[in-house]
Amino acid sequence: MARTEIRIGGFGGQGVVTMAVVLGETLSLVEGRHCVQTQSYGPEARGGASKSEIVVDDELVDYPKVQEPDIFVVLSRAAYLEYIHGLKENGILILDEDLVEIEGDLPAGVKVYKVPATRIAEKQVGTKQATNVVMMGVLAAITGIVTEDGLRQAIKDRWPRFVDTNFKALELGLDAGKAALVAQ
Amino acid sequence: MARTEIRIGGFGGQGVVTMAVVLGETLSLVEGRHCVQTQSYGPEARGGASKSEIVVDDELVDYPKVQEPDIFVVLSRAAYLEYIHGLKENGILILDEDLVEIEGDLPAGVKVYKVPATRIAEKQVGTKQATNVVMMGVLAAITGIVTEDGLRQAIKDRWPRFVDTNFKALELGLDAGKAALVAQ
Repeated sequence: MARTEIRIGGFGGQGVVTMAVVLGETLSLVEGRHCVQTQSYGPEARGGASKSEIVVDDELVDYPKVQEPDIFVVLSRAAYLEYIHGLKENGILILDEDLVEIEGDLPAGVKVYKVPATRIAEKQVGTKQATNVVMMGVLAAITGIVTEDGLRQAIKDRWPRFVDTNFKALELGLDAGKAALVAQ
Repeated sequence: MARTEIRIGGFGGQGVVTMAVVLGETLSLVEGRHCVQTQSYGPEARGGASKSEIVVDDELVDYPKVQEPDIFVVLSRAAYLEYIHGLKENGILILDEDLVEIEGDLPAGVKVYKVPATRIAEKQVGTKQATNVVMMGVLAAITGIVTEDGLRQAIKDRWPRFVDTNFKALELGLDAGKAALVAQ
């Protein structure tokens, strides 16, 4: 697989940065690819849109900044409005359907997948904090950019004391991602 | 303050990435500066040296990659050997004295500060997992790049359920950093 750019947007407290960090660890440490994972912050980020980015390649990543993401995962309206125009034509848009609506024109050919990730975390896992792990499962099911086993390994490495809860969140996310694939 | 580059090196499980993420959040979201925080991984990173980097500036960060860090915080011998030659002349080297020894020549004029961060976390805080928070206090005391109050705010935002333990780790790190400053 060639260079792929992923952007994740949301607001503070949703675990956007942690999601990007764990995806970066899965892609590189577990799955053996090259990966640069970046947060860029300005003072305006407090309370506003935040984003984390991942560039993954089979070879050394030559240019570390995301230019036009292939995949945009978005968990807040502010992040949607700020970053939707960067999404590549024919790219993949994954959104939390309770928090984000499609507004305005999308880049041509974008595939949209809607998932209630926060609701699944809150109602089915029992904690909103698992939203980012649910979304990792969704991303894996829809894009195939990371494997289920790879995510399991990275999640176990990072949170050895919370394996059961996070594996449950991951499973539910995988299911929700598969459902969104069928619905698309 | 002009552009400052910080590199943190260690091995997996020491919380190097989390340390860099929380420092990035402190610098930008709490203290209002511009900041880019990056992890670069290759497949060789598993079990080897890992690093996380922060570029901070008063204006928008124009070039996101660390070129020659002003500050290098290092928690493993492998990371020391791999990254010490990148440190800027007259730069600041902060090392965990139980895990890293000075080997070979240092870049000219480097100031070295030795702190038993892991030992403090294990013996005085009661958990090795607090090593990265101890080291944040050390960094703040030695470099002044972040404020004590800023770190407190960022730590509280990120770990609302572990405030007491982390504040204790931070205090001990600040004390150890002040002691290392006097010893230098």
